Amino acid sequence: MGINQGRPPFPTIKRLALYTRPLESLLGSKVQVVSSEMLAKMCGVTPAQVRKDLSYFGDFGTRGVGYDVVELLKTIKGILATDRKWNLCIVGIGNLGKALAENENFKKRGYEFVALFDSEKEKIGKSLGPGLVIYPLDEIPQKVKELNIEIGVITTKANQARRAADLLVLGGIRAILNFSPIQLRPPEGILLENIDISVRFEKIAYVLAKGLK
Amino acid sequence: MGINQGRPPFPTIKRLALYTRPLESLLGSKVQVVSSEMLAKMCGVTPAQVRKDLSYFGDFGTRGVGYDVVELLKTIKGILATDRKWNLCIVGIGNLGKALAENENFKKRGYEFVALFDSEKEKIGKSLGPGLVIYPLDEIPQKVKELNIEIGVITTKANQARRAADLLVLGGIRAILNFSPIQLRPPEGILLENIDISVRFEKIAYVLAKGLK
Repeated sequence: MGINQGRPPFPTIKRLALYTRPLESLLGSKVQVVSSEMLAKMCGVTPAQVRKDLSYFGDFGTRGVGYDVVELLKTIKGILATDRKWNLCIVGIGNLGKALAENENFKKRGYEFVALFDSEKEKIGKSLGPGLVIYPLDEIPQKVKELNIEIGVITTKANQARRAADLLVLGGIRAILNFSPIQLRPPEGILLENIDISVRFEKIAYVLAKGLK
Repeated sequence: MGINQGRPPFPTIKRLALYTRPLESLLGSKVQVVSSEMLAKMCGVTPAQVRKDLSYFGDFGTRGVGYDVVELLKTIKGILATDRKWNLCIVGIGNLGKALAENENFKKRGYEFVALFDSEKEKIGKSLGPGLVIYPLDEIPQKVKELNIEIGVITTKANQARRAADLLVLGGIRAILNFSPIQLRPPEGILLENIDISVRFEKIAYVLAKGLK
Protein backbone atom coordinates (compact mmCIF):
# COMPACT_ATOMS: atom_id res chain seq x y z
CA MET A 1 0.00 0.00 0.00
CA GLY A 2 1.55 3.32 -1.04
CA ILE A 3 1.73 6.46 1.03
CA ASN A 4 -1.35 8.59 0.57
CA GLN A 5 -1.34 11.77 2.55
CA GLY A 6 -4.52 12.35 4.44
CA ARG A 7 -5.79 8.80 4.14
CA PRO A 8 -6.61 7.58 7.64
CA PRO A 9 -4.58 4.57 8.80
CA PHE A 10 -6.36 1.24 9.30
CA PRO A 11 -6.20 1.34 13.12
CA THR A 12 -8.32 4.51 12.85
CA ILE A 13 -10.82 2.69 10.64
CA LYS A 14 -11.05 -0.16 13.15
CA ARG A 15 -11.59 2.29 15.99
CA LEU A 16 -14.29 4.12 14.02
CA ALA A 17 -16.10 0.80 13.77
CA LEU A 18 -15.66 0.37 17.54
CA TYR A 19 -17.09 3.85 18.20
CA THR A 20 -20.32 2.95 16.41
CA ARG A 21 -21.17 0.30 19.04
CA PRO A 22 -21.71 2.60 22.06
CA LEU A 23 -23.16 5.24 19.72
CA GLU A 24 -25.84 2.72 18.74
CA SER A 25 -26.58 2.05 22.42
CA LEU A 26 -26.74 5.79 23.16
CA LEU A 27 -29.11 6.23 20.23
CA GLY A 28 -31.26 3.42 21.61
CA SER A 29 -31.34 5.17 25.02
CA LYS A 30 -32.27 8.47 23.35
CA VAL A 31 -29.05 10.20 24.49
CA GLN A 32 -28.50 13.13 22.11
CA VAL A 33 -24.99 14.36 22.83
CA VAL A 34 -21.80 12.52 23.72
CA SER A 35 -18.44 13.98 24.78
CA SER A 36 -15.14 12.58 23.52
CA GLU A 37 -14.39 11.66 27.15
CA MET A 38 -17.53 9.56 27.45
CA LEU A 39 -17.11 7.91 24.07
CA ALA A 40 -13.47 7.18 24.89
CA LYS A 41 -14.40 5.60 28.20
CA MET A 42 -17.06 3.42 26.58
CA CYS A 43 -14.50 2.15 24.05
CA GLY A 44 -11.44 1.82 26.27
CA VAL A 45 -9.35 4.41 24.43
CA THR A 46 -8.17 7.93 25.38
CA PRO A 47 -10.28 11.06 24.64
CA ALA A 48 -7.31 12.41 22.64
CA GLN A 49 -7.43 9.31 20.47
CA VAL A 50 -11.14 9.80 19.78
CA ARG A 51 -10.61 13.42 18.81
CA LYS A 52 -7.63 12.58 16.61
CA ASP A 53 -9.48 9.77 14.82
CA LEU A 54 -12.48 11.97 14.11
CA SER A 55 -10.31 14.89 12.98
CA TYR A 56 -9.35 12.94 9.85
CA PHE A 57 -12.84 13.43 8.56
CA GLY A 58 -13.40 17.10 9.20
CA ASP A 59 -14.35 19.27 12.09
CA PHE A 60 -17.37 18.06 13.91
CA GLY A 61 -18.39 18.26 17.52
CA THR A 62 -18.74 21.42 19.55
CA ARG A 63 -15.94 22.26 21.98
CA GLY A 64 -17.08 21.80 25.56
CA VAL A 65 -20.36 20.22 24.46
CA GLY A 66 -19.59 17.15 22.44
CA TYR A 67 -20.87 15.32 19.42
CA ASP A 68 -24.44 14.98 18.26
CA VAL A 69 -25.04 11.22 18.52
CA VAL A 70 -27.25 10.92 15.42
CA GLU A 71 -24.94 13.02 13.25
CA LEU A 72 -21.76 11.31 14.43
CA LEU A 73 -23.14 7.83 13.86
CA LYS A 74 -24.37 8.80 10.40
CA THR A 75 -21.03 10.33 9.48
CA ILE A 76 -19.02 7.33 10.70
CA LYS A 77 -21.29 4.90 8.87
CA GLY A 78 -20.81 6.95 5.73
CA ILE A 79 -17.03 6.82 6.14
CA LEU A 80 -17.06 3.09 6.81
CA ALA A 81 -19.47 2.48 3.93
CA THR A 82 -21.73 0.61 6.30
CA ASP A 83 -24.55 2.83 5.14
CA ARG A 84 -24.86 0.39 2.24
CA LYS A 85 -25.58 -3.33 2.12
CA TRP A 86 -22.96 -5.98 1.39
CA ASN A 87 -23.73 -9.49 0.19
CA LEU A 88 -21.63 -12.17 1.86
CA CYS A 89 -21.40 -15.94 1.80
CA ILE A 90 -19.96 -18.40 4.28
CA VAL A 91 -18.04 -21.49 3.24
CA GLY A 92 -17.89 -24.09 6.01
CA ILE A 93 -20.98 -24.44 8.17
CA GLY A 94 -19.43 -25.84 11.34
CA ASN A 95 -19.83 -24.18 14.73
CA LEU A 96 -18.09 -20.96 13.74
CA GLY A 97 -19.91 -20.72 10.41
CA LYS A 98 -23.22 -21.20 12.21
CA ALA A 99 -22.30 -18.64 14.88
CA LEU A 100 -21.63 -16.05 12.17
CA ALA A 101 -24.70 -16.94 10.11
CA GLU A 102 -26.97 -16.64 13.13
CA ASN A 103 -25.40 -13.47 14.53
CA GLU A 104 -28.04 -10.76 14.17
CA ASN A 105 -25.52 -7.94 14.47
CA PHE A 106 -24.07 -8.48 11.04
CA LYS A 107 -27.31 -7.84 9.26
CA LYS A 108 -27.96 -4.77 11.38
CA ARG A 109 -24.63 -3.40 10.19
CA GLY A 110 -25.31 -4.07 6.53
CA TYR A 111 -23.54 -7.42 6.14
CA GLU A 112 -26.02 -9.91 4.83
CA PHE A 113 -25.19 -13.56 4.41
CA VAL A 114 -27.03 -14.60 1.25
CA ALA A 115 -25.55 -18.07 0.68
CA LEU A 116 -23.98 -20.86 2.73
CA PHE A 117 -21.75 -23.65 1.47
CA ASP A 118 -20.42 -26.88 2.94
CA SER A 119 -18.63 -29.95 1.63
CA GLU A 120 -20.46 -32.47 3.83
CA LYS A 121 -23.25 -34.28 2.02
CA GLU A 122 -25.44 -34.50 5.12
CA LYS A 123 -25.51 -30.71 5.41
CA ILE A 124 -26.40 -29.90 1.80
CA GLY A 125 -29.98 -28.71 1.31
CA LYS A 126 -30.53 -28.07 5.01
CA SER A 127 -31.45 -24.57 5.95
CA LEU A 128 -30.17 -22.30 8.68
CA GLY A 129 -31.78 -19.20 10.12
CA PRO A 130 -34.44 -17.53 8.01
CA GLY A 131 -34.43 -19.48 4.77
CA LEU A 132 -30.69 -19.78 4.13
CA VAL A 133 -30.01 -23.08 2.36
CA ILE A 134 -26.64 -24.87 2.45
CA TYR A 135 -25.23 -25.52 -1.05
CA PRO A 136 -22.35 -27.78 -2.10
CA LEU A 137 -18.94 -26.19 -2.74
CA ASP A 138 -19.20 -26.75 -6.52
CA GLU A 139 -21.95 -24.18 -6.68
CA ILE A 140 -19.84 -21.39 -5.20
CA PRO A 141 -18.75 -19.74 -8.49
CA GLN A 142 -22.26 -19.66 -9.91
CA LYS A 143 -23.93 -18.41 -6.73
CA VAL A 144 -21.30 -15.72 -6.17
CA LYS A 145 -22.06 -14.31 -9.61
CA GLU A 146 -25.83 -14.79 -9.42
CA LEU A 147 -26.28 -13.21 -5.99
CA ASN A 148 -23.67 -10.44 -6.38
CA ILE A 149 -21.64 -11.74 -3.46
CA GLU A 150 -18.67 -9.46 -2.82
CA ILE A 151 -17.21 -10.88 0.38
CA GLY A 152 -16.57 -14.58 1.06
CA VAL A 153 -16.03 -15.85 4.61
CA ILE A 154 -14.03 -19.07 4.97
CA THR A 155 -14.76 -21.07 8.11
CA THR A 156 -13.90 -24.50 6.71
CA LYS A 157 -11.50 -27.00 8.19
CA ALA A 158 -7.88 -26.42 7.18
CA ASN A 159 -7.91 -28.98 4.39
CA GLN A 160 -10.84 -27.31 2.58
CA ALA A 161 -9.74 -23.69 2.84
CA ARG A 162 -7.66 -23.47 -0.36
CA ARG A 163 -10.39 -25.07 -2.43
CA ALA A 164 -12.95 -22.72 -0.93
CA ALA A 165 -10.76 -19.72 -1.79
CA ASP A 166 -10.17 -20.94 -5.37
CA LEU A 167 -13.89 -21.36 -5.96
CA LEU A 168 -14.69 -17.93 -4.51
CA VAL A 169 -12.07 -16.36 -6.76
CA LEU A 170 -13.49 -18.22 -9.75
CA GLY A 171 -16.87 -16.66 -9.01
CA GLY A 172 -15.39 -13.16 -8.97
CA ILE A 173 -15.32 -12.47 -5.24
CA ARG A 174 -13.73 -9.14 -4.21
CA ALA A 175 -12.61 -9.98 -0.68
CA ILE A 176 -12.01 -13.04 1.48
CA LEU A 177 -12.18 -13.23 5.26
CA ASN A 178 -10.22 -16.27 6.28
CA PHE A 179 -10.87 -17.80 9.71
CA SER A 180 -8.99 -21.01 8.84
CA PRO A 181 -5.38 -21.41 10.00
CA ILE A 182 -4.24 -21.88 6.37
CA GLN A 183 -2.27 -19.17 4.60
CA LEU A 184 -4.18 -18.34 1.45
CA ARG A 185 -2.65 -16.59 -1.55
CA PRO A 186 -5.47 -15.13 -3.64
CA PRO A 187 -4.54 -13.45 -6.92
CA GLU A 188 -3.54 -9.78 -6.99
CA GLY A 189 -6.51 -7.47 -6.59
CA ILE A 190 -8.47 -9.67 -4.20
CA LEU A 191 -8.46 -8.45 -0.63
CA LEU A 192 -7.56 -11.06 1.97
CA GLU A 193 -8.09 -10.57 5.70
CA ASN A 194 -7.01 -13.33 8.08
CA ILE A 195 -8.83 -13.54 11.38
CA ASP A 196 -7.20 -15.43 14.21
CA ILE A 197 -9.27 -15.12 17.36
CA SER A 198 -6.52 -16.58 19.54
CA VAL A 199 -4.42 -13.45 18.94
CA ARG A 200 -6.78 -11.62 21.28
CA PHE A 201 -6.17 -14.21 23.97
CA GLU A 202 -2.46 -13.49 23.76
CA LYS A 203 -2.87 -9.85 24.63
CA ILE A 204 -4.76 -10.86 27.77
CA ALA A 205 -2.16 -13.45 28.71
CA TYR A 206 0.59 -10.87 28.22
CA VAL A 207 -1.06 -8.31 30.46
CA LEU A 208 -1.78 -10.88 33.20
CA ALA A 209 1.71 -12.36 33.08
CA LYS A 210 3.44 -8.98 33.30
CA GLY A 211 1.11 -7.81 36.05
CA LEU A 212 0.31 -4.67 34.05
CA LYS A 213 -3.18 -4.55 35.52
CA MET B 1 -2.95 2.81 31.65
CA GLY B 2 -0.05 5.11 32.59
CA ILE B 3 2.95 5.97 30.45
CA ASN B 4 5.78 3.49 30.95
CA GLN B 5 8.83 4.21 28.88
CA GLY B 6 10.15 1.23 27.01
CA ARG B 7 6.99 -0.82 27.41
CA PRO B 8 5.90 -2.01 23.99
CA PRO B 9 2.49 -0.75 22.86
CA PHE B 10 -0.36 -3.24 22.52
CA PRO B 11 -0.42 -3.19 18.71
CA THR B 12 3.15 -4.53 18.93
CA ILE B 13 2.02 -7.29 21.26
CA LYS B 14 -0.79 -8.24 18.88
CA ARG B 15 1.62 -8.31 15.95
CA LEU B 16 4.06 -10.47 17.92
CA ALA B 17 1.24 -12.96 18.35
CA LEU B 18 0.59 -12.74 14.58
CA TYR B 19 4.27 -13.40 13.84
CA THR B 20 4.18 -16.69 15.74
CA ARG B 21 1.70 -18.19 13.23
CA PRO B 22 3.96 -18.31 10.14
CA LEU B 23 6.93 -19.08 12.40
CA GLU B 24 5.11 -22.19 13.56
CA SER B 25 4.48 -23.19 9.91
CA LEU B 26 8.13 -22.56 9.03
CA LEU B 27 9.20 -24.67 12.00
CA GLY B 28 6.90 -27.44 10.78
CA SER B 29 8.50 -27.23 7.32
CA LYS B 30 11.98 -27.34 8.91
CA VAL B 31 12.90 -23.87 7.61
CA GLN B 32 15.71 -22.60 9.89
CA VAL B 33 16.11 -18.93 9.02
CA VAL B 34 13.58 -16.23 8.11
CA SER B 35 14.23 -12.69 6.92
CA SER B 36 12.19 -9.73 8.14
CA GLU B 37 11.01 -9.34 4.51
CA MET B 38 9.65 -12.88 4.38
CA LEU B 39 8.05 -12.72 7.81
CA ALA B 40 6.50 -9.36 6.93
CA LYS B 41 5.05 -10.72 3.70
CA MET B 42 3.59 -13.75 5.47
CA CYS B 43 1.87 -11.45 7.98
CA GLY B 44 0.80 -8.62 5.70
CA VAL B 45 2.92 -5.93 7.39
CA THR B 46 6.04 -4.06 6.28
CA PRO B 47 9.58 -5.38 6.95
CA ALA B 48 10.34 -2.13 8.82
CA GLN B 49 7.39 -2.85 11.12
CA VAL B 50 8.70 -6.35 11.88
CA ARG B 51 12.14 -4.99 12.71
CA LYS B 52 10.74 -2.20 14.85
CA ASP B 53 8.46 -4.56 16.79
CA LEU B 54 11.28 -6.98 17.51
CA SER B 55 13.68 -4.19 18.46
CA TYR B 56 11.68 -3.56 21.66
CA PHE B 57 12.97 -6.83 23.02
CA GLY B 58 16.68 -6.59 22.27
CA ASP B 59 18.89 -7.12 19.32
CA PHE B 60 18.25 -10.37 17.60
CA GLY B 61 18.56 -11.49 14.04
CA THR B 62 21.70 -11.15 11.90
CA ARG B 63 21.80 -8.32 9.38
CA GLY B 64 21.51 -9.65 5.83
CA VAL B 65 20.76 -13.16 7.07
CA GLY B 66 17.64 -13.04 9.17
CA TYR B 67 16.23 -14.58 12.29
CA ASP B 68 16.74 -18.10 13.54
CA VAL B 69 13.19 -19.52 13.45
CA VAL B 70 13.49 -21.65 16.60
CA GLU B 71 15.11 -18.87 18.64
CA LEU B 72 12.70 -16.18 17.45
CA LEU B 73 9.63 -18.28 18.17
CA LYS B 74 10.96 -19.16 21.63
CA THR B 75 11.74 -15.52 22.39
CA ILE B 76 8.33 -14.27 21.24
CA LYS B 77 6.52 -16.95 23.22
CA GLY B 78 8.54 -15.93 26.26
CA ILE B 79 7.56 -12.29 25.75
CA LEU B 80 3.90 -13.17 25.25
CA ALA B 81 3.94 -15.56 28.21
CA THR B 82 2.55 -18.28 25.97
CA ASP B 83 5.37 -20.51 27.14
CA ARG B 84 3.13 -21.25 30.12
CA LYS B 85 -0.31 -22.76 30.40
CA TRP B 86 -3.48 -20.76 31.14
CA ASN B 87 -6.69 -22.24 32.48
CA LEU B 88 -9.82 -20.80 30.86
CA CYS B 89 -13.53 -21.42 31.02
CA ILE B 90 -16.33 -20.63 28.59
CA VAL B 91 -19.73 -19.38 29.70
CA GLY B 92 -22.39 -19.91 27.03
CA ILE B 93 -22.11 -23.07 24.96
CA GLY B 94 -23.91 -21.98 21.78
CA ASN B 95 -22.31 -22.12 18.35
CA LEU B 96 -19.52 -19.68 19.18
CA GLY B 97 -18.78 -21.29 22.55
CA LYS B 98 -18.57 -24.69 20.87
CA ALA B 99 -16.37 -23.34 18.09
CA LEU B 100 -13.91 -22.01 20.67
CA ALA B 101 -14.04 -25.14 22.85
CA GLU B 102 -13.33 -27.39 19.88
CA ASN B 103 -10.62 -25.22 18.32
CA GLU B 104 -7.39 -27.20 18.68
CA ASN B 105 -5.19 -24.15 18.20
CA PHE B 106 -5.94 -22.72 21.61
CA LYS B 107 -4.55 -25.70 23.48
CA LYS B 108 -1.45 -25.74 21.28
CA ARG B 109 -0.82 -22.15 22.32
CA GLY B 110 -1.23 -22.81 26.01
CA TYR B 111 -4.88 -21.81 26.45
CA GLU B 112 -6.73 -24.72 27.93
CA PHE B 113 -10.48 -24.68 28.44
CA VAL B 114 -10.99 -26.58 31.69
CA ALA B 115 -14.68 -25.89 32.33
CA LEU B 116 -17.80 -25.02 30.35
CA PHE B 117 -20.99 -23.41 31.64
CA ASP B 118 -24.45 -22.85 30.26
CA SER B 119 -27.78 -21.74 31.64
CA GLU B 120 -29.93 -24.12 29.58
CA LYS B 121 -31.04 -27.17 31.53
CA GLU B 122 -30.88 -29.47 28.51
CA LYS B 123 -27.18 -28.75 28.06
CA ILE B 124 -26.08 -29.32 31.68
CA GLY B 125 -24.13 -32.54 32.21
CA LYS B 126 -23.50 -33.05 28.50
CA SER B 127 -19.89 -33.23 27.46
CA LEU B 128 -18.04 -31.58 24.63
CA GLY B 129 -14.70 -32.55 23.12
CA PRO B 130 -12.44 -34.70 25.26
CA GLY B 131 -14.24 -34.98 28.56
CA LEU B 132 -15.35 -31.39 29.10
CA VAL B 133 -18.66 -31.38 30.96
CA ILE B 134 -21.13 -28.47 30.84
CA TYR B 135 -21.98 -27.11 34.32
CA PRO B 136 -24.77 -24.76 35.37
CA LEU B 137 -23.94 -21.06 35.86
CA ASP B 138 -24.34 -21.34 39.67
CA GLU B 139 -21.21 -23.46 39.81
CA ILE B 140 -18.99 -20.84 38.16
CA PRO B 141 -17.52 -19.30 41.38
CA GLN B 142 -16.65 -22.67 42.89
CA LYS B 143 -15.14 -24.13 39.70
CA VAL B 144 -13.12 -20.99 38.96
CA LYS B 145 -11.48 -21.32 42.40
CA GLU B 146 -11.13 -25.11 42.33
CA LEU B 147 -9.59 -25.31 38.85
CA ASN B 148 -7.45 -22.14 39.06
CA ILE B 149 -9.24 -20.56 36.14
CA GLU B 150 -7.68 -17.18 35.35
CA ILE B 151 -9.49 -16.18 32.15
CA GLY B 152 -13.25 -16.38 31.59
CA VAL B 153 -14.71 -16.26 28.09
CA ILE B 154 -18.29 -14.99 27.77
CA THR B 155 -20.18 -16.25 24.72
CA THR B 156 -23.66 -16.11 26.22
CA LYS B 157 -26.67 -14.36 24.77
CA ALA B 158 -26.88 -10.68 25.67
CA ASN B 159 -29.30 -11.18 28.56
CA GLN B 160 -26.97 -13.62 30.38
CA ALA B 161 -23.68 -11.76 29.96
CA ARG B 162 -23.84 -9.58 33.10
CA ARG B 163 -24.74 -12.52 35.30
CA ALA B 164 -21.91 -14.56 33.78
CA ALA B 165 -19.44 -11.74 34.48
CA ASP B 166 -20.65 -11.31 38.08
CA LEU B 167 -20.23 -15.02 38.79
CA LEU B 168 -16.76 -15.10 37.23
CA VAL B 169 -15.73 -12.12 39.35
CA LEU B 170 -17.14 -13.81 42.44
CA GLY B 171 -14.90 -16.81 41.72
CA GLY B 172 -11.83 -14.59 41.54
CA ILE B 173 -11.28 -14.48 37.77
CA ARG B 174 -8.40 -12.23 36.60
CA ALA B 175 -9.58 -11.47 33.07
CA ILE B 176 -12.75 -11.61 30.98
CA LEU B 177 -12.99 -11.93 27.22
CA ASN B 178 -16.42 -10.72 26.26
CA PHE B 179 -17.88 -11.79 22.92
CA SER B 180 -21.39 -10.63 23.85
CA PRO B 181 -22.61 -7.23 22.63
CA ILE B 182 -23.21 -6.10 26.22
CA GLN B 183 -20.96 -3.53 27.85
CA LEU B 184 -19.64 -5.12 31.03
CA ARG B 185 -18.17 -3.16 33.92
CA PRO B 186 -16.07 -5.51 36.01
CA PRO B 187 -14.54 -4.14 39.23
CA GLU B 188 -11.16 -2.38 39.16
CA GLY B 189 -8.26 -4.78 38.74
CA ILE B 190 -10.06 -7.22 36.47
CA LEU B 191 -8.98 -7.07 32.87
CA LEU B 192 -11.79 -6.86 30.31
CA GLU B 193 -11.30 -7.39 26.59
CA ASN B 194 -14.31 -7.01 24.28
CA ILE B 195 -14.20 -8.96 21.04
CA ASP B 196 -16.47 -7.87 18.22
CA ILE B 197 -15.81 -9.93 15.12
CA SER B 198 -17.90 -7.64 12.92
CA VAL B 199 -15.30 -4.87 13.34
CA ARG B 200 -13.06 -6.87 11.03
CA PHE B 201 -15.80 -6.91 8.41
CA GLU B 202 -15.90 -3.13 8.48
CA LYS B 203 -12.27 -2.78 7.52
CA ILE B 204 -12.91 -4.96 4.47
CA ALA B 205 -16.04 -3.03 3.52
CA TYR B 206 -14.14 0.24 3.87
CA VAL B 207 -11.33 -0.88 1.58
CA LEU B 208 -13.75 -2.26 -1.04
CA ALA B 209 -15.96 0.82 -0.98
CA LYS B 210 -13.06 3.24 -1.35
CA GLY B 211 -11.47 1.13 -4.07
CA LEU B 212 -8.18 1.12 -2.15
CA LYS B 213 -7.33 -2.32 -3.49
